[in-house]
Amino acid sequence: MMPDTTTLETKNASLSSHKSPITIGLLGLGTVGTGVYKLLARFPQTAISKIAVKNLDKQRSLSQIPPNTLTAHAEDVIKDPNIDIIVELIGGKEYPYQLIRQALESGKHVVTANKVVIAHYGPELFALAAEKGVNLFFEAAVAGGIPIVLPLKTSLAGNQIQQIAGILNGTTNYILTRMEQAGLDFQAALKEAQAKGFAEADPTADIEGHDAACKISILGSIAYNAYLPQPAVYTEGISNIGAADIEMARTFGYTIKLIALAKGCENNAVDLRVHPMLVPSEHPLAKVAYENNAIWVQGDAVGDVMFYGKGAGELPTASAVVGDILFMTQALQSGQSYLAGMDFSLPGQGSIRPIADTTNAYYIRLEAEDQPGVLGHLGQACGDHNVSLDAIMQKGTHPETKTATIVLLTHEVQEADLQAALKTMQAQSSTKRIHTVLRVFQP
Amino acid sequence: MMPDTTTLETKNASLSSHKSPITIGLLGLGTVGTGVYKLLARFPQTAISKIAVKNLDKQRSLSQIPPNTLTAHAEDVIKDPNIDIIVELIGGKEYPYQLIRQALESGKHVVTANKVVIAHYGPELFALAAEKGVNLFFEAAVAGGIPIVLPLKTSLAGNQIQQIAGILNGTTNYILTRMEQAGLDFQAALKEAQAKGFAEADPTADIEGHDAACKISILGSIAYNAYLPQPAVYTEGISNIGAADIEMARTFGYTIKLIALAKGCENNAVDLRVHPMLVPSEHPLAKVAYENNAIWVQGDAVGDVMFYGKGAGELPTASAVVGDILFMTQALQSGQSYLAGMDFSLPGQGSIRPIADTTNAYYIRLEAEDQPGVLGHLGQACGDHNVSLDAIMQKGTHPETKTATIVLLTHEVQEADLQAALKTMQAQSSTKRIHTVLRVFQP
Repeated sequence: MMPDTTTLETKNASLSSHKSPITIGLLGLGTVGTGVYKLLARFPQTAISKIAVKNLDKQRSLSQIPPNTLTAHAEDVIKDPNIDIIVELIGGKEYPYQLIRQALESGKHVVTANKVVIAHYGPELFALAAEKGVNLFFEAAVAGGIPIVLPLKTSLAGNQIQQIAGILNGTTNYILTRMEQAGLDFQAALKEAQAKGFAEADPTADIEGHDAACKISILGSIAYNAYLPQPAVYTEGISNIGAADIEMARTFGYTIKLIALAKGCENNAVDLRVHPMLVPSEHPLAKVAYENNAIWVQGDAVGDVMFYGKGAGELPTASAVVGDILFMTQALQSGQSYLAGMDFSLPGQGSIRPIADTTNAYYIRLEAEDQPGVLGHLGQACGDHNVSLDAIMQKGTHPETKTATIVLLTHEVQEADLQAALKTMQAQSSTKRIHTVLRVFQP
Repeated sequence: MMPDTTTLETKNASLSSHKSPITIGLLGLGTVGTGVYKLLARFPQTAISKIAVKNLDKQRSLSQIPPNTLTAHAEDVIKDPNIDIIVELIGGKEYPYQLIRQALESGKHVVTANKVVIAHYGPELFALAAEKGVNLFFEAAVAGGIPIVLPLKTSLAGNQIQQIAGILNGTTNYILTRMEQAGLDFQAALKEAQAKGFAEADPTADIEGHDAACKISILGSIAYNAYLPQPAVYTEGISNIGAADIEMARTFGYTIKLIALAKGCENNAVDLRVHPMLVPSEHPLAKVAYENNAIWVQGDAVGDVMFYGKGAGELPTASAVVGDILFMTQALQSGQSYLAGMDFSLPGQGSIRPIADTTNAYYIRLEAEDQPGVLGHLGQACGDHNVSLDAIMQKGTHPETKTATIVLLTHEVQEADLQAALKTMQAQSSTKRIHTVLRVFQP
C-alpha cells in the first residue's frame, strides 16, 4: 500500500514550474477526496485552498489539513475568486450537478469522478463549459484508475470503433469470480463481497447493472460521437445467475461476466447494453478476476486493445482525478485555457438499436419434465421461430420432482425470434421453469 | 480487415470544424505511411498535401494519390510553407533525425513513429521543439497502436511509478509463444515467424532485444522524469532459450517472456533492462500470446494497470500516428500551439542502477556429470556466495554422455553474488555446461 502523505517524497515532476501554483477547491472529503488530498501533496504546482465537507466536526485521518481550509458550505469554495479548479467528489446526482453547473458558470474548471452526473447531464455541462471557455474533465468517472476516457478521445480517435466491451463494475465481477472459484451461490457471494467492502449495504446499483450502464453510456457517447444517455441502455443484472449456470457455462468453455457493450451498427445506430454474458474462457476479458475492471476496444485500424486495472478505491480513483488536475494545471500554466475535444458536447441524442433487433447466440437453462419427447418439443419451439440450435444438453435429472435440467445453446439469431421461441417453450406443458437466458459474447 | 479507403465512410468526427484543414506532409509511404494515408482520408480537418518517397516510379496500392503530391525530395516537404505538420515514417536513425531537426527548425510540428530517433535524440529534439514552440509527438514509437505514451504522461502522472514491465516486441513474443505451444526450438520458431512476416530477414534488432530496449528507454524516461538512453539499458535476447527451458519453466509454473523492465530504486536510480524472464503463468503478462504487446504498469496510487494490443503493423501503428495528428490538429484549430508536458525534454541523464547491484530470483539450467555428490557441489557453490536455493531438480539423465540436466531456482539474491556462484559452478569438474540463466519476474 501507499505510504502516508507525510512520508511521500514530493514528486519532482517535469510538470513543476516556478509559476504560482494552480489553486484547487475540493467538494467532498470522503474516500476519494482523501486520496486526492494525499496525492496532490506531491505536486507543488497545485495548492488545495478550500475543502467543502458535510460535517466539520468529523474526526479525519488527515491531521495535516489546516482547520481554516475546511468549510461546510460548498458555495464558499465555488465562489472563491482565487480558486482555479473545482474538484467535485461528493457523489449523488442532482446536488453535485447543481454544484458543477455553478462552478462552470463562475468560470471555474471542473474535474469530477461522478459518472451519474456525466451520463445524465454531460452534453449540457460540456456545452456550458465550452461557452465559458473552461474545461470539464472526468477520467475517473469510468473504470477508476484505468486510463480510458483520454485514450479513447485522443490516441484511438483515428479508428471507427466496432465494439467496446467492458467489465466496468468491480462488485459484480467480484461476486461472479467467487461464484466461479468457490462454487458459491449468488447470495453467499454477495454477502462475502459486502463483508469485504466490495459491495455496499444496498447493492442494487451495482448488481442490477445501473452503475455499469452509466459508464457504457459515457464510453459509447465518446466512441460514437453521439450522446447515448443512460436510460437508453438496455440493462440486466446478475442476481438471477445460479451456481448451476456458472458450472454449465464452464462445461461449454465459457466464463460468465457482466459485460457493458457498445457496438456500432448500420445507419449510425449503436447497440448499447449491460447484461451478463458467456465469454469464451480463453478471451482476455474472461480472465479479469475479482474486483478488477477491463475495457476491450475493437477499432477498425488498431484491432483489439484492452485496458485493465482497478476500477474503484481511494487511491486508484484519486490517481485518475489527479491525472486530470495535473493535465489541466499544465495547460493553465502554459497559458492555455479551454482544451477542445476533451468532452462530448454533442448536439443531439444518438440513435439506439432496440434490443429486439440485435442478434446474439444464447444460452438457455430450464427445468422440464423428465419424459420422452421433451427435447423434441424444445427443438420444435426453436425451429418454429428461426432459432437454430448449436447444442442441447440434458444435465442431471431430479427424481423427487421428476424433472431434468436442460441447457440449450443457439447459433446467432435475432433477439425478437428468441423471445418468441421462449414464449412457445414456456407455454409447453412439459416446461416447468425457464431459469436463465444469457447472451454469448462474440469477440 | 479494414476496407479500402474508397469504401470508408468519412468519419463525422466531433473533431471536424469549418476551419481550413491542417496541412500534413508525409515523409515515407511504406507500410505505416500507407496506413496513415488511408486513415486520414476520413478526417476533413486534415489534408495531406505532399509526400516524400524514395522511388517515384514504384507501383503503389494507393491509386488515388494525385501524382503531383509525390516528390523524391524530403526537403520539398519540410520547406513547404503551407505545411503545418510533418509526419516522419521513414525509419532508420541519422537521416530521419536530420529531417525531424530540420522540420522543427522550420517551425513545423512533427509526429513520428521512430523509436530509435526518440530513444537516441529525444531530449535534444524536445528542447528544440519547445524553443520553437512546436510539438513533437511519438505515441506510435512504443507498442504501435496501444495508447501508452499519452496515458503515462497524463492520466497516470499522479503516481510514483514502481515498475513498468512490458512485452514490447511482437517478433520475440511470437517466437516464444510458438516454442511454448508447439514445442518448437528457437530456430524453427524464428523461421516460421519469418515465413509469416512477423520477423525480418535480419532479425537481430528484435531477437537480441535492441528494439525493446529503445522502447523501454522511452517509457522509463517518461515514468522517471529523467533521460535514460537506450545504450544504458542492460540487454539480453532470446536466442539461447531452448525448448527444454520452456518446458522446465512450465513445470515450475512459469512462462518465458522477453520483458522490458523499468523499476524505480533508491536515490532516484532506475533499474532498466531487457531480458527473458520466467513470468508466473497466472500473471496477465504470461497470457499475452503471439505478436501481441502489453505494458504492465505499477503505480503507488493506481495499483496495477495493463495496456494490451497489437504492437506493430500497418493499421495499428497508423492508428497511433493518426491519433497524434488529430490531437495536434484539434489544438492548432483551437488556436493553441505548443502543448507543454507531452515530451521528455529533460536536462540531464538519469542514473541507472548497474545490473550487478540488482536483486532477482534466478533459474539456471545446466548439464553435469551424472554421479553422486553433484547436487551437493552445486548447492555448495551457491551457499559460498550467499545464493540461497528455492528448488533444485534433476530432470532426466543422458546415458550416452553420462550427464544429467539439472535446474536450480534461487530465492531473491544479488546479481553479483549469482555471477560469482556461476563462476564457481563453472569451475567444478562435474559441471559440463551452464546452458541458460534466466531471471524471474516479481509482480
